[in-house]
Amino acid sequence: MQIAELAMAYAQSRELSERLCEPLAVEDYVVQSMPDASPTRWHLAHTTWFFETFVLARCETDYRPFNSHYQVLFNSYYNRVGEQFPRSRRGLLTRPTVADVFAYRHAVDERMAHLFGRRTSDESREAARIVELGINHEQQHQELMLTDIKHLFWCNPLWPAYCKWSAHPKTTSRGSLRDPQPPHWTGFDGGIVEIGHAKEAFAFDNEGPRHQVLLQPFHIQQRLVTTGEFLAFMNDGGYRRPELWLSLGWSTVCEQKWTAPLYWIEQDGQWQQFTLHGLRPVQQAEPVCHVSYFEADAFARWSGARLPTEAEWEEAASHIQPETAPHHDHFHPQPVSDDSARLAQLYGEVWQWTASPYTPYPGYVPAAGPLGEYNGKFMCNQYVLRGSSCATPAGHTRPTYRNFFPHDARWQFTEIRLARDPV
Amino acid sequence: MQIAELAMAYAQSRELSERLCEPLAVEDYVVQSMPDASPTRWHLAHTTWFFETFVLARCETDYRPFNSHYQVLFNSYYNRVGEQFPRSRRGLLTRPTVADVFAYRHAVDERMAHLFGRRTSDESREAARIVELGINHEQQHQELMLTDIKHLFWCNPLWPAYCKWSAHPKTTSRGSLRDPQPPHWTGFDGGIVEIGHAKEAFAFDNEGPRHQVLLQPFHIQQRLVTTGEFLAFMNDGGYRRPELWLSLGWSTVCEQKWTAPLYWIEQDGQWQQFTLHGLRPVQQAEPVCHVSYFEADAFARWSGARLPTEAEWEEAASHIQPETAPHHDHFHPQPVSDDSARLAQLYGEVWQWTASPYTPYPGYVPAAGPLGEYNGKFMCNQYVLRGSSCATPAGHTRPTYRNFFPHDARWQFTEIRLARDPV
Amino acid sequence: MQIAELAMAYAQSRELSERLCEPLAVEDYVVQSMPDASPTRWHLAHTTWFFETFVLARCETDYRPFNSHYQVLFNSYYNRVGEQFPRSRRGLLTRPTVADVFAYRHAVDERMAHLFGRRTSDESREAARIVELGINHEQQHQELMLTDIKHLFWCNPLWPAYCKWSAHPKTTSRGSLRDPQPPHWTGFDGGIVEIGHAKEAFAFDNEGPRHQVLLQPFHIQQRLVTTGEFLAFMNDGGYRRPELWLSLGWSTVCEQKWTAPLYWIEQDGQWQQFTLHGLRPVQQAEPVCHVSYFEADAFARWSGARLPTEAEWEEAASHIQPETAPHHDHFHPQPVSDDSARLAQLYGEVWQWTASPYTPYPGYVPAAGPLGEYNGKFMCNQYVLRGSSCATPAGHTRPTYRNFFPHDARWQFTEIRLARDPV
Amino acid sequence: MQIAELAMAYAQSRELSERLCEPLAVEDYVVQSMPDASPTRWHLAHTTWFFETFVLARCETDYRPFNSHYQVLFNSYYNRVGEQFPRSRRGLLTRPTVADVFAYRHAVDERMAHLFGRRTSDESREAARIVELGINHEQQHQELMLTDIKHLFWCNPLWPAYCKWSAHPKTTSRGSLRDPQPPHWTGFDGGIVEIGHAKEAFAFDNEGPRHQVLLQPFHIQQRLVTTGEFLAFMNDGGYRRPELWLSLGWSTVCEQKWTAPLYWIEQDGQWQQFTLHGLRPVQQAEPVCHVSYFEADAFARWSGARLPTEAEWEEAASHIQPETAPHHDHFHPQPVSDDSARLAQLYGEVWQWTASPYTPYPGYVPAAGPLGEYNGKFMCNQYVLRGSSCATPAGHTRPTYRNFFPHDARWQFTEIRLARDPV
Repeated sequence: MQIAELAMAYAQSRELSERLCEPLAVEDYVVQSMPDASPTRWHLAHTTWFFETFVLARCETDYRPFNSHYQVLFNSYYNRVGEQFPRSRRGLLTRPTVADVFAYRHAVDERMAHLFGRRTSDESREAARIVELGINHEQQHQELMLTDIKHLFWCNPLWPAYCKWSAHPKTTSRGSLRDPQPPHWTGFDGGIVEIGHAKEAFAFDNEGPRHQVLLQPFHIQQRLVTTGEFLAFMNDGGYRRPELWLSLGWSTVCEQKWTAPLYWIEQDGQWQQFTLHGLRPVQQAEPVCHVSYFEADAFARWSGARLPTEAEWEEAASHIQPETAPHHDHFHPQPVSDDSARLAQLYGEVWQWTASPYTPYPGYVPAAGPLGEYNGKFMCNQYVLRGSSCATPAGHTRPTYRNFFPHDARWQFTEIRLARDPV
Repeated sequence: MQIAELAMAYAQSRELSERLCEPLAVEDYVVQSMPDASPTRWHLAHTTWFFETFVLARCETDYRPFNSHYQVLFNSYYNRVGEQFPRSRRGLLTRPTVADVFAYRHAVDERMAHLFGRRTSDESREAARIVELGINHEQQHQELMLTDIKHLFWCNPLWPAYCKWSAHPKTTSRGSLRDPQPPHWTGFDGGIVEIGHAKEAFAFDNEGPRHQVLLQPFHIQQRLVTTGEFLAFMNDGGYRRPELWLSLGWSTVCEQKWTAPLYWIEQDGQWQQFTLHGLRPVQQAEPVCHVSYFEADAFARWSGARLPTEAEWEEAASHIQPETAPHHDHFHPQPVSDDSARLAQLYGEVWQWTASPYTPYPGYVPAAGPLGEYNGKFMCNQYVLRGSSCATPAGHTRPTYRNFFPHDARWQFTEIRLARDPV
Repeated sequence: MQIAELAMAYAQSRELSERLCEPLAVEDYVVQSMPDASPTRWHLAHTTWFFETFVLARCETDYRPFNSHYQVLFNSYYNRVGEQFPRSRRGLLTRPTVADVFAYRHAVDERMAHLFGRRTSDESREAARIVELGINHEQQHQELMLTDIKHLFWCNPLWPAYCKWSAHPKTTSRGSLRDPQPPHWTGFDGGIVEIGHAKEAFAFDNEGPRHQVLLQPFHIQQRLVTTGEFLAFMNDGGYRRPELWLSLGWSTVCEQKWTAPLYWIEQDGQWQQFTLHGLRPVQQAEPVCHVSYFEADAFARWSGARLPTEAEWEEAASHIQPETAPHHDHFHPQPVSDDSARLAQLYGEVWQWTASPYTPYPGYVPAAGPLGEYNGKFMCNQYVLRGSSCATPAGHTRPTYRNFFPHDARWQFTEIRLARDPV
Repeated sequence: MQIAELAMAYAQSRELSERLCEPLAVEDYVVQSMPDASPTRWHLAHTTWFFETFVLARCETDYRPFNSHYQVLFNSYYNRVGEQFPRSRRGLLTRPTVADVFAYRHAVDERMAHLFGRRTSDESREAARIVELGINHEQQHQELMLTDIKHLFWCNPLWPAYCKWSAHPKTTSRGSLRDPQPPHWTGFDGGIVEIGHAKEAFAFDNEGPRHQVLLQPFHIQQRLVTTGEFLAFMNDGGYRRPELWLSLGWSTVCEQKWTAPLYWIEQDGQWQQFTLHGLRPVQQAEPVCHVSYFEADAFARWSGARLPTEAEWEEAASHIQPETAPHHDHFHPQPVSDDSARLAQLYGEVWQWTASPYTPYPGYVPAAGPLGEYNGKFMCNQYVLRGSSCATPAGHTRPTYRNFFPHDARWQFTEIRLARDPV
């Protein structure tokens, strides 16, 4: 990327984070609703800390930290950078205030602008790579800002809406609220295929190296599982039949008393779901959402199918370009469409659980230095998700992208696409 | 109390709550730093809910709730009023916002003003008693607002100050920072004495009935235990010697890794304490503060003394009128004075743990209806504290007052006064 | 007590502990069913350790410990003796085996016998006092052996019986299984009375000093609360009505999901209770048993009565001598009798909760040295029980005896006797 | 397998379980030292329940359960069989006694012998397959009996030995206690290879289907990591350097305060390890043992290497036959030998962690019915171990065997063999 282009991407990304905050009251920035989620003000500050720590501190000749406390307060998990304020206590901090955090952002933006204005050099090419990483990092946090605020609002019996509902913009052309047709299966031949990122453009280190894998022939569903299909699972006793679940999944169902996806509640015999647009009746034609790996796996078993591996998913998705149109006008998946002749809903609706534990690709080596902690050290007890969601920023989507969450996580926009062996 | 007087007291108390919030940022109102503490916005709303529920709902002919959700959200523990939002989750609510809460306060104040303007009747005499209770209730929460914000700020490594430190206003006349003289003991004869409130003015129900108790002769210290004396206990291994502690206290010391009072930290070999005025060096002449019942009891044992019972304390204090001067200019106890000829520091500095579990007085019967839940149902696993603290509002202090907290509570302004049997 | 008498009492007590074990399998000696309970083999060893540590180690000229590990393994809570194996892990020890523990007992018994045979001296008078304490200590553990084995067997769905049921031996003469008459109230005048032990015979240190207390006039029920009366409380929603409970009690009801006394289960619509004689139908005429302080307090409130204070209980009981006949033929309270003209069932059936927190009497000073840890350090967060139970050894019962347990303890034989103020 | 052969294998396996118990006292059979471990008496009963439930109940014409309670008490996790007594409470059961459990075993053995004597039929071929599974199942529990008793004895400060130490029987011929030579690396070419069991003999369902995988070229160490090498890691700050650990591993190190492998303690500056033969000094030439996946992974990272995948391990091991000699004369790995020209110590010393999460092989389908719960439902949050250990029964070892445990498990005989990419 050229510097000018990079500066533009930086500015757009930084602006988007702040635009996403517009519907919030000051109070909403502060609270941490569970250890897995972070307060909005922390996301805003941490993404800024990233640029300050990994770009400004390296490239500014007379670098001084904006505030030496922030180096600890807003360090997420980089042990090689230094001490971190404990993750589970992020919601105890009311200072620096939200206004202070915005001031921090703007000061760093100004210093970044100054850097962008400097002449290119070898050193700055390395810096440019880190800036690009920082932009992608902030995009990840933009999605988390939305999922975390959704969880926070869910904890409030007033069920505040983050923003108004507008009819799904593409409902007329691509979907409808009528019950969709049964899904088609698309077959693939298997054999030796290549997966992973070849690094001709930006990608996270965990997407590479590109390498060969051997696939057996497989089938994959053309569209996502709908809420209506998931209700059939529920009505068939899905949450009460241990034989459908992994052992650990069944313990979780019992301990957490799960009876439906997260954010569903029954009111007067009707299922409602809490969305960023407030409480809405469950729509059968919409993709089911906010299910854990355990629920995705149990649903697949109940269906006589299975989840795809990440290699299968990537192979199936490999010839379909992610749509690039920005879409930050709705934060809920849109109804399933019947008329697609090809794999649909890969991107921009909901992340899709795969059957693959999150492990390093053959030959994977984390970057040297603290940035090596970005991805590699989390390769344990997590499962890979593929695609992208309605909360993923435009431009942050590609076939090789590896998202990952633990098996019981439900507060992300997570969903099911089925696969099976040929019959 | 006459209605006009009552209206004035109401207005002053309501105003004080808001004045205490002036140093706060919006963010500070929202967070709950531990289950025992509540967010400031909750205190502001709950005290308002009290008047709405127990006065407006009874006295307004066309009563409608300000917001029906608030009836649940801001009900603390009144089962007979209805459901309660869980105490430990108060910090998850970012809505209603702080501005909404102030609007709630002002709407209720206006409706209360309207009530005050009505003609007196029998019914209103009963209402007047509840208004007086509500004012005293709000005063209790004013103290809690200060202790809870202190705990919140303590969790923040920036250690924000609630307000500036000003030299102890009475230091010249009544105390100094020099090490005080050893304390005097004042002797009392024992015999049958009367304790408890006779109800000629306002008192909480747990202060009565006034009744006779039989006391053995006893001695009580003229002043409070100083920080210097407590440091001697610490330096003598006080926190490392199980023989000085109750069994449950020793478990707490080990589990919580207590080595000093709450809010103390060691920096470069010097003890500092966190106050509402920020971090300050420990002053030997000041009363020690933020100790639990366990620490008070262990210190007394180490001293060869004991804590007074609440009857002993009340008998000793019975001829000394609490000072009535308002003092909301400092929120930290002032140094001990040497020149007092009588019992000193009973009020306005720090609450004093007694050896008495919090139990009902003989003949105690809680009020009928929900207000009977105010005090009586907490008479279990708590100890009585007497006096009042630098955070207690003016006019909320009397010899019969029974404060109570669990044995391990340290975030209140709590202290030690020693007693002993005659030698 | 003369030495010969003491030696006899020692032998009888030691023999009783072993006799109580006769119905047990080796396996039953080993397991700890909850942190509050201890394995039988631990009780057998700890009571032996007590004599070894406090008598042999002081009186034997050439004292050597039986096994130096035992000094830690079987020290319960005496910090001044030294380190202790953690209480909650007592059930992890399978060695020393049961046979080893019996060998330990017999070796210590032999060495004690040798001591008893020595000539009397001043030193031995002090030793005699400790031996007497040790005998009473072992008697306390004999009761705990029974309550702990009952809890262990309750955890086993086979519900093993500790011993066979035999018809209540005194049923014909003193009680019957018919519903008893409503209880009589006996009135007392109040005034200054003396309570506490005067030390003319053995008593624990917490029973003294004997001292004056001032009582208001009060009434107390002639007999204990029956199972039938408690069922009426249950059927009236007793476990579902928060207004009947202390706040902490209500939390406990909700968290522990209490719906009946401990050891009750409903089978085919009938209440059964687990006893040391196996599962038996609840008998309406029997005293209710295995209720916590919280349940006793809630039942009293529901009855329009209250629990007696320990001073009231002692004053009421002061002219009634405990029965001295040994009765280790049944381990379940016997039915209530109607024909008593005086206070009945004070002793030998079930312990009776009082309204009194366990605090030191005026002037109480624990013994010097480790034995001072016996009682004093537990005077916190416990309530006093009076009387004695069907599991209390003969001779271990007196009007001044202060038993104590936390508010939620239910595995002891604990019950309710009501008191009230005069009307 | 022929019926006679099967009957012989059954008898030998059943006899081995009981032989392994010979060193135990009755008390040792009863206790559960942690939720992951089970009491010996439970292992003895559960393996018997397996034959009763899956063989006798199907094949006996007049089947009656030995004891209907046992169906629940000794069901481990088979939801399709019915209810289960909770795993974490297995140690609360003192009845049925050990003698009862042996009686249960012998009664089932007798009924099995009767079955073996019957004429062959189609039905009995299916039964024979289940008997073979039951024998292998009991062999797995034989290993667990040893690892669980080791953990139990470790909890006892007396550190009892399960059996006496005898010099490693093969030390002279194959190993020595001198520090071994640095390990050799053996290279493999990669390409498409086959792994998994082809079912020509007994294997667990999770070992198949046999299928092709694509391997990159790799190197693997000829021998296991020694205690001496692991000490070098420890001395280099291995347990104090977060950069060497997975994020979850580092949390575990901090929370559990790990500073060495399980069963190691430092005494007078010397490392000792607790073995089934009692406490012994750490020997540098022995394989390190009782390390978790986290420690294996961190050690590999520190070494500049990695763990092998299970496919790499199986490919490397594919031409080496497990030794078949029975070896139940020692329960501790033997010293590393220098003179091996090929891959050594694959079997019979310690299990080797692989980098592979435990997932189903392509095309894996669990058996129909309850036995489908044997392996499949645990394929989540566990890692595969390969090889076998000194506690594995003879004949229970093969190149395709997939053992699996969670990442933090350390009480199994688990170890490290390093792999790396070609340089």
